[in-house]
Amino acid sequence: MRSLRIALAQINTTVGDLDGNAWKIVQSIRRAKELGTDIVAFPELAVTGYPPEDLVLKPKFVADNVERLRDIAAETEGIVAIVGFVDLQEDLYNAAAVIQNRSIVGVYRKMFLPTYGVFDEDRYFQAGAECPVFAFGDTVLGVNICEDIWYPVGPATAQAFGGAELIVNINGSPYHVAKSASRERMLATRAVDELVIVAYVNMVGGQDELVFDGGSVIFDQRGEVVARGSQFEEDLVVADLDIEAVFRTRLHDPRRRKGRHIFESLGDPAAQLVGSSPLVQHPKPPLSGSKPKLYIPPGNPGEVYAALVLGTHDYASKNGFKQVVIGLSGGIDSSLTAVIAADALGPQNVFGVRMPSRFTSQPSMEDAEQLALNLGIHLLTVPIEPPFQAMLETLAEAFRGTAVGIAEENLQARIRGNILMALSNKFGYLVLTTGNKSELAVGYSTLYGDMAGGYNLLKDVVKTEVYELARYRNGKEAKAPIPERVFTKAPSAELRPNQRDEDTLPTYDMLDPIVKAYVEEDKSFEEIVALGYDEQMVKRVISMIDKSEYKRRQAPPGIKITPRAFGRDRRLPITNAYRQW
Amino acid sequence: MRSLRIALAQINTTVGDLDGNAWKIVQSIRRAKELGTDIVAFPELAVTGYPPEDLVLKPKFVADNVERLRDIAAETEGIVAIVGFVDLQEDLYNAAAVIQNRSIVGVYRKMFLPTYGVFDEDRYFQAGAECPVFAFGDTVLGVNICEDIWYPVGPATAQAFGGAELIVNINGSPYHVAKSASRERMLATRAVDELVIVAYVNMVGGQDELVFDGGSVIFDQRGEVVARGSQFEEDLVVADLDIEAVFRTRLHDPRRRKGRHIFESLGDPAAQLVGSSPLVQHPKPPLSGSKPKLYIPPGNPGEVYAALVLGTHDYASKNGFKQVVIGLSGGIDSSLTAVIAADALGPQNVFGVRMPSRFTSQPSMEDAEQLALNLGIHLLTVPIEPPFQAMLETLAEAFRGTAVGIAEENLQARIRGNILMALSNKFGYLVLTTGNKSELAVGYSTLYGDMAGGYNLLKDVVKTEVYELARYRNGKEAKAPIPERVFTKAPSAELRPNQRDEDTLPTYDMLDPIVKAYVEEDKSFEEIVALGYDEQMVKRVISMIDKSEYKRRQAPPGIKITPRAFGRDRRLPITNAYRQW
Repeated sequence: MRSLRIALAQINTTVGDLDGNAWKIVQSIRRAKELGTDIVAFPELAVTGYPPEDLVLKPKFVADNVERLRDIAAETEGIVAIVGFVDLQEDLYNAAAVIQNRSIVGVYRKMFLPTYGVFDEDRYFQAGAECPVFAFGDTVLGVNICEDIWYPVGPATAQAFGGAELIVNINGSPYHVAKSASRERMLATRAVDELVIVAYVNMVGGQDELVFDGGSVIFDQRGEVVARGSQFEEDLVVADLDIEAVFRTRLHDPRRRKGRHIFESLGDPAAQLVGSSPLVQHPKPPLSGSKPKLYIPPGNPGEVYAALVLGTHDYASKNGFKQVVIGLSGGIDSSLTAVIAADALGPQNVFGVRMPSRFTSQPSMEDAEQLALNLGIHLLTVPIEPPFQAMLETLAEAFRGTAVGIAEENLQARIRGNILMALSNKFGYLVLTTGNKSELAVGYSTLYGDMAGGYNLLKDVVKTEVYELARYRNGKEAKAPIPERVFTKAPSAELRPNQRDEDTLPTYDMLDPIVKAYVEEDKSFEEIVALGYDEQMVKRVISMIDKSEYKRRQAPPGIKITPRAFGRDRRLPITNAYRQW
Repeated sequence: MRSLRIALAQINTTVGDLDGNAWKIVQSIRRAKELGTDIVAFPELAVTGYPPEDLVLKPKFVADNVERLRDIAAETEGIVAIVGFVDLQEDLYNAAAVIQNRSIVGVYRKMFLPTYGVFDEDRYFQAGAECPVFAFGDTVLGVNICEDIWYPVGPATAQAFGGAELIVNINGSPYHVAKSASRERMLATRAVDELVIVAYVNMVGGQDELVFDGGSVIFDQRGEVVARGSQFEEDLVVADLDIEAVFRTRLHDPRRRKGRHIFESLGDPAAQLVGSSPLVQHPKPPLSGSKPKLYIPPGNPGEVYAALVLGTHDYASKNGFKQVVIGLSGGIDSSLTAVIAADALGPQNVFGVRMPSRFTSQPSMEDAEQLALNLGIHLLTVPIEPPFQAMLETLAEAFRGTAVGIAEENLQARIRGNILMALSNKFGYLVLTTGNKSELAVGYSTLYGDMAGGYNLLKDVVKTEVYELARYRNGKEAKAPIPERVFTKAPSAELRPNQRDEDTLPTYDMLDPIVKAYVEEDKSFEEIVALGYDEQMVKRVISMIDKSEYKRRQAPPGIKITPRAFGRDRRLPITNAYRQW
């Protein structure tokens, strides 16, 4: 019986860390060899980290990446390694090297370059034009990259028609809610359509706005899961593949012969097939069975929560921060931010700061303190009243004769931003901002005030989801970290007497669906009104969203968890006179 | 004799202002008709403004743009109008409508979509695949868009071989130093290569980070300038074209017949020619001669200065700001910023603010005051000493036992940022930041401090060029606005006693070339050292540039004047472990 042992190395690379990434790759190759695997596959652009962005436009960087690939190749005695790297051949390619016994047997170059959402691959890469297959003993292997397998007639089709029984698809596929379900559905369909085993390896880890969730998985030719990796952590997924079964299934399947002429008539340049290169097969020791792992169901708050923890951990650690500082207002956003930070970095590395003013209520002070006690994080108290008073006095002449308003409110928020940044500058803490997607959408936040900081955990989480995540996390332990009153009191910025968010904004259960419809779904004013929302309210919300683009342009990065996040995912002009009514 | 009168409508559109843009287009059509022109051409995406970015991903926006095009078409009785718009045909196209007598005779769809630098057109548009030509009386006309004409074998080649004697190329081509010279050289070459008249129409005006410089121009088939529009202002360039001369030149030129088989054998999909549509010709009144205009030579400080004035004016006015506020330190950056702002918006709309601290020198106070007097701008003085003292006191406990350092310096800068933003919030002024490209490169600026504001005029101007521009502007008037001492004293942030930029940074005549080599030319560490700079200094500068990416991500937009600006032009990850040594 023909069979083959494969390892999917779901590693957490760092963009630009060529030495570190190469070292991780080599360690995984060694481990895979110990486990007697025939083939070990690594994520997309594993050598450079993903996405390397304009680093690939530096010739030295590309040269260094090729050099690291050669170093890695030296470690492939007795195994086949599939390694993502930037290939330089007249132009740049997002490529996968197929390496065996210290030599690069072949290179696959990505054909479908995503240039939408957060992706800019047409900016960097030339599209590949060839679909090689490789003979490994009597097994035929095809390799392709990420986006390539999302097309029903693409490289996988060409490779299957070229005889491939196993398709290895290497990925840098960023997380958003419920993506893993649609991804697995598609992969299962491809496996059945092409009658191949599909081995999907994804990277894991955070990179600026993105979190890669891993979830590497193997589907057999019947669309059944053979093995599945962890979500949100590194893993080495090892499985024995029954290649013989692919052949048996094909013999019984009527579609192969009937479909062939359709494919041949397509003349798709993406499906130009190049002959196969032989790979040498090695003997191997027996392996104790690898069973499918369960993963967190899509759309589950636990999945989102895990993404936020990983994103926070990796942004801090990959940028050299051990400790973080957070302004604690006693509200739900800063409470959840502190909890996530404590989970990501340890409570001993989290510094909460209360910054009371004349408008800060006693419950806010108490709730912030209780939260810090519950979590075991550090708590500082730095009153803003003296500098606030001094600012009002120094501005008194300039402000003479004007009514108290937004300017005085923002002064307070910016004094708080200044205090947090001063602690950051003094002690090297990373400042985590606490705003949510609802606020950032409508501009209900102070630029250089509560928006001042290095990373915004809840940037892509609307307010109602903030409550949901907080509830989820509180429910995980007998001793809930976030005090109950934080859930029940009315949200307030506490920048003037008796202020409530609802004085300025629609209630969040009204606001959030409008934000989602306009921002995430590009629905028009009329379409949103047709959903049953008040016309005047929709106008007001859309106007606020449009007018806040300048604030978002200066906002810190945060973690994408939806199909359309603010940041590189949504690129609107600041200067924009478009109005729909 | 066959001749034709053409008008190039070099208009200043606003992104998203579909009504306003349509109105401008209609006004130009009417004026062109009064002048008896046969053809009037408008810039790329004139209906939507350029670049519309993710607005084109809103279906309603695209539908509204098509509706405005129909409104415009109704105004074309007796004239041919070539109008840039977003065409929706199964997919989106960056397109030019050829309209005559109220009907859209044909549509050209851009073939070469720029996806580099500041451009993301592959994100939005499908590439066109057809090169139509149009018969206007006995003249044959080809239309194409911007990038299309930069390729030596492209749509213009196809159209010329299809009989086109006049190529109208519509543009949204952003300014950078010396671009107009290379652009004109290329256009002249195309005209001679294809033996056609090339009429190049560009937009003018500022849009976020970009300034479009106009400079519309017509070259005849010998590569001679027929007419040229203004730079940095709206214009209607009208010229009579001698089409007969194109035909005469072709008859005498040996290349046409000899080259034809080469072109036909190319099989370039970009050169697929579609037949011609006829356009009706109208009688016309005589026109008084239109002569070539001179334009500012490339690389001239006057050209850059004009770009900065236009960019400032348009960012303010298109975002609804009449007045601006600037922190005046008495240094060269804030002085030049104030002068540009006064030129762009009028001195009565500029508010300078002195914000002295214990470290502010008497000369700084005097120079800021003298500048304000010279310019006739408003001057406020808001001391930061009381809030600075209050901040130190409220932070005393948290800072206990630490040495005075960067944290205390940044406190002052952020108090100043807070004051400027308070004035903005109170009075509706736009805050202009005063940083330059050298500072932004190495991170020698305070996030939320001197970086706090809506627009950064000098963002793409290195320090040595700041001096050059200031000298240029001072030399324009008998009464120089910037006091001489501002040029001669050593640059200092005045955030600690006797501070000088040179304590922390290399001198600017050393720093600026390294910044240019690393940022604008992607030169490697070794290549820069090979230019003759000290190895340790180069290492230090490159490290500072790499580590400041997080600051730049939160920087306000500013005006691009070089081939590689910070902002959308240069997209590096924040999380980036790449080091070259």
